[in-house]
Order: sequence, then structure tokens, then C-alpha cells
Amino acid sequence: MSDLHQLGLNDFRSIMMFTTGLARRAGALILEGSAAIQSASYESGVGEKKNSVDLVTEYDVKVEKLVQDELKAQFPTFSFIGEESYSAGARPPLTDAPTFCVDPIDGTTNFIHGFPFVCISIGLIYKKRPVLGVIYNPFLDHLYTGIRGQGSFLMRGAGTPQLRLPLSAAKPLPSLSQALIAIEWGSDRSLGTISAKSDSFSRLTGNPAQGVIGGKMAHSLRSVGSAALNYALVAQGGLDLYWEIGCWPWDVCAGIVIAEEAGGVVTGSHSIFATTENNGFGEITEEILIGRKYLVVRGIADTPGEKGVDAQKRIIKEFYASVDDVEPN
Amino acid sequence: MSDLHQLGLNDFRSIMMFTTGLARRAGALILEGSAAIQSASYESGVGEKKNSVDLVTEYDVKVEKLVQDELKAQFPTFSFIGEESYSAGARPPLTDAPTFCVDPIDGTTNFIHGFPFVCISIGLIYKKRPVLGVIYNPFLDHLYTGIRGQGSFLMRGAGTPQLRLPLSAAKPLPSLSQALIAIEWGSDRSLGTISAKSDSFSRLTGNPAQGVIGGKMAHSLRSVGSAALNYALVAQGGLDLYWEIGCWPWDVCAGIVIAEEAGGVVTGSHSIFATTENNGFGEITEEILIGRKYLVVRGIADTPGEKGVDAQKRIIKEFYASVDDVEPN
Repeated sequence: MSDLHQLGLNDFRSIMMFTTGLARRAGALILEGSAAIQSASYESGVGEKKNSVDLVTEYDVKVEKLVQDELKAQFPTFSFIGEESYSAGARPPLTDAPTFCVDPIDGTTNFIHGFPFVCISIGLIYKKRPVLGVIYNPFLDHLYTGIRGQGSFLMRGAGTPQLRLPLSAAKPLPSLSQALIAIEWGSDRSLGTISAKSDSFSRLTGNPAQGVIGGKMAHSLRSVGSAALNYALVAQGGLDLYWEIGCWPWDVCAGIVIAEEAGGVVTGSHSIFATTENNGFGEITEEILIGRKYLVVRGIADTPGEKGVDAQKRIIKEFYASVDDVEPN
Repeated sequence: MSDLHQLGLNDFRSIMMFTTGLARRAGALILEGSAAIQSASYESGVGEKKNSVDLVTEYDVKVEKLVQDELKAQFPTFSFIGEESYSAGARPPLTDAPTFCVDPIDGTTNFIHGFPFVCISIGLIYKKRPVLGVIYNPFLDHLYTGIRGQGSFLMRGAGTPQLRLPLSAAKPLPSLSQALIAIEWGSDRSLGTISAKSDSFSRLTGNPAQGVIGGKMAHSLRSVGSAALNYALVAQGGLDLYWEIGCWPWDVCAGIVIAEEAGGVVTGSHSIFATTENNGFGEITEEILIGRKYLVVRGIADTPGEKGVDAQKRIIKEFYASVDDVEPN
């Protein structure tokens, strides 16, 4: 590994080699954990809840320990940010040092239920910007990878070819009425948040010609329950947008690299989009990364009348005019 | 093939053999169509919309023709119900004859966008009841099959073992607060339907201790955009419930067999559940099959205090008390 503050492409390639192998080992542990939770729930009968919760915690800790131990052994000088650094108290400031930003099990509810959208998400931040991402879903054996400036890829099954993302060339996106949009119900279930979300979802789906004021009549809404995999699906072109409020940097760090390398743009909250230079595009600032409000839009083709990047801005403007801002709890 | 009105297990096995092969061939055509749609959208630039729509129709017709032609050649005496028999005018009454009930492309919006939840769904109705189902998702190479009385199975990748469903033994389900529930936004976007749905979804997710009146605080809601695959996910145990209003018999016919053979129960509308003998369980009546309102619940384990089937009734009662009925348009 070269000097800490001068990581280059070869370094990123060797980090990628190591982290993809690690993601696959973590994935095997996730599958083992999911199977254990299913059996335990059954054997324990009425005691189901406690037993499952214990096992979820046990495997969450196991996967996290595997990943942290291996990353620390291989890259002893790198920093870490994650759930434990936040919960330990004041959030440590980002530095210029290479910093892993990892969610060992993204999609915990799916993990408990055996719904096959669960992944490990390994992001690397360097000079305060996400530069490398690995997302691995062991249930579907889908591995997404990206290095800043080098494109992003999907491998569906070990030993199969790496497919460049997006899977097809970027398409136009005339308006939200043409869009397939990922949204999530999240963990904040208070009246204020749930009302704001369901009102927003109603406007996104509703037909203005059939009484829904401000209705956008989007193609539809999808919810798969994993932030990282929503980013991956936007990157591959299967979703047009993904809107999230309340998740954390480790849920999105890897996904940001993978989506951006596929031509997508990521911005932060309503106010960041409205007030930041160039709408927050192009450079994921620390403010966006830690802001817990994210909107990602897929790559959009240039058309004779409009550049793709202008179409992305137009779509985000239309989107943020249609949904309510919410404060995450 | 034995006498029409006396189909037996060997007949169903040979129908299964033929229909799974046919589903894989249809799946290859679906993948070809999805790829064609993606490229066409790009090449046509601003003319994107028309071109895509034409291709969707073209492949919908192609897949339907392949499936109908092959089924008619192989089973010339069998009947068919599907979109075309409904749109031709008055719905033909169900007879005792074996009747294919096929959706050539379930998840059309996903098909257009390349979101990987698209399938062909082939159901067989015999003596007015669903008896055989095949659901194949070519994007993930997942093949679900079921024959009445013979169990249901998932094959993840050609040549891999058939996995009996559910993938793990049935678990208890103490209440909706423990449930992962599939819902869909559907195609009826009028104010009445969208309001009723979003109010219902808010109650399912909301926390009663944080102001949501009637809130059930379900684990979460999922939307993948294919009725048939929602049934398959309930059958495998990855989802606890799936609620749908507005889809058609061909969207659910195969899924009903696969879910029931995995221990799930299917019922119809609020009023069918409330007024039919045994809550409509056990025998899918013609009224349920064509009723366009469906609720499916996974198999639930017996506990010391409660039989699984009573738990299923309790969960449906709790569910239908929480959501609004809606008339499909």
C-alpha cells in the first residue's frame, strides 16, 4: 500500500480485490444467520420473538466483527465510521484519511424474514469523498462494485462476467410520470413522519385528472427494504429514482459510488438541492454524506433539446416539489 | 392424456413437465423483449415513449402467442381464460373442464424498466379450482411450481435442486406488528382509491403510541410490482401477507396453488372473509378466484395455545379491520 495520503488506482484495485472477497465471506455468514433465525423461530414456539432478536443481534455482531477485524488487519492505518462510532457519542469529524464506512447487514428486517434483499455494504471514503463501493446480496448472489472514475459493475453469480452499469445505455426521462421510484416506509412511525410520507406517496402516484391535487401519476413505487440495494438498482437502470430520509452514511456510502459511476447523480435534502452550488451535484460533500436525506437519480441520456444532467436537475426539481420534507428522528 | 374429466396425478405431472419447459422458453423471450425495449428507448431519443410502448405490446403479444399456441397444440381440448376472453365481452362462465389461466408477462411496469421482478404465470383450473401453478422469473432464474396436494417448490437456477416451500419450517405470527406485508400501488390512481390505500398503509405502519390512530406498527411494507411473485414470496416464507385489490384471476391463479401448497391460505374481499363458511378458507371458490380482491397469508406454526389455521384467521381479521375496502375500477 502506498503512502496513506496518496492512494492511487492500483491501491484502489487491491482494496477492491480484498473487499469483494471479504463481502462474499460476510455474505455466507449472513445466509447462515438467516437460516438460524428461521429454525430458531420455529423451535422456540411462543418464545419466538426474544429468540429471533437475540440471533439477529448475534449475527449482526458476528458479521460486523468479521469485517472490522479483517479490514483492520489488512489496512491498519485506515479509519472507520459506522453505527458504533455514532452511538459512542459525538460523531467524529471526517478527516482526509481513508475511512471505511460499512453496514454489515443492510436490510435487517428482510434478514429476519428471509426476504431476499439483504446485503453487506462496504464503502471507502478518501479525502472526505466516497471513492469505492462494494455491495453484495448473498441471497441472489449479486455483487455490485465501483471505483471512482473507473465505472461500476454487477456480477450475477460467482465466475460470471462483470456487467458494466447501467445494464443498458442511459434512456431519456421526460417526467416523473414515466418514472419507477423506490421509496421506503422506514423505522420512524410517528404520526408526523407517516402522514408526510403517505401524502407524498399519494401525490407521486395519484392521477391529477381523477382528483389527486398535485398528482404526478408515476409509473409506480417500489419498496425492497435495503437502501444499498436501492442505490444498486438505480445504478443498473431498473429504478429511475430512490428517495430516502433517515438512513445513515454507511447505508449509502458504497451505493453513492456505484450509482455515480453508472451516470447517476446523488443530492441531499430539499434545502441542499435548492441552495448548494450546482445543486450539490458532482461532489458529494460531507454535508450530503452525513445529512440523512438522499435522492439519487439514474443517468439520463442527452436528447436533442436537453443535456442529461439538465434532465436530472429538472426531475429532482419536479420530485422535491411533490414530496414533503421530514425530519428524521 | 386420460379422459378430460378424470385428470389424475400422472396427468398433472406431465402437464407440469411441459409447462415448466414452456415457461423457460417464454422467459427467454421476456428477457429478449426487455433488452430490446432498453435499446429502443435509447436510439429513439425524444420519441422514446411511443417506441417503448410499441415494443411492450409487441413482446406481450409474442409471449402470449408462444404460450397459447404451444398449450393449444399440446392440450387441444383444454379451455383458456385470460385478458382476451375478458376483453372480448361478457366473461365466459367457468366450467369443470381443465382451463389454463395465464399471464404471459406479470409485472409489465417492471418489464419496461428492467426492474428484475417480472415473470410468466401459468395456472391450471380443473373442476373450477386452481390445481397447478408455474411461475418463472427469468431475470433471477427463479422457477416456482406447485400441484394441488403435492407441495410447491422453488428452483433457483436451472439444474439446481428443487427446494420445498416454505424454505424454512413455518413460524408463529403473534400479530401484524411482527409482519412483513406486500402491498401494491396498482393502476387505479383515482383520489378515492389512492386515499383509501395510503390511509390503510399508514395504519399498517404507524405507531399507535406516537399518534397514529389504529396503527399496527407492522415490521414493514414491501412492493415489488408483480402479483404472481408476491404469492411466490409468501409461499417461500419471505413475506407474511400480501394484499391486493384490482388484479385478475390470471395474475393469481398459479400463485394460489403455490402458496396453498406451502401452507398458506388465500381468501377474498372483506365481505367474503366475513360471510363465507370457514372464512373462504380451504376451497378457492369461483367467487374468490374472479373477485379481484385477494389476501394471502403464509403458513403459521401451531403453538401450544393456538392452531396455525386459527392464527391465520386471527391475522386476517386483524388485517381487514385495519385496511379500507376499495372497489377496483
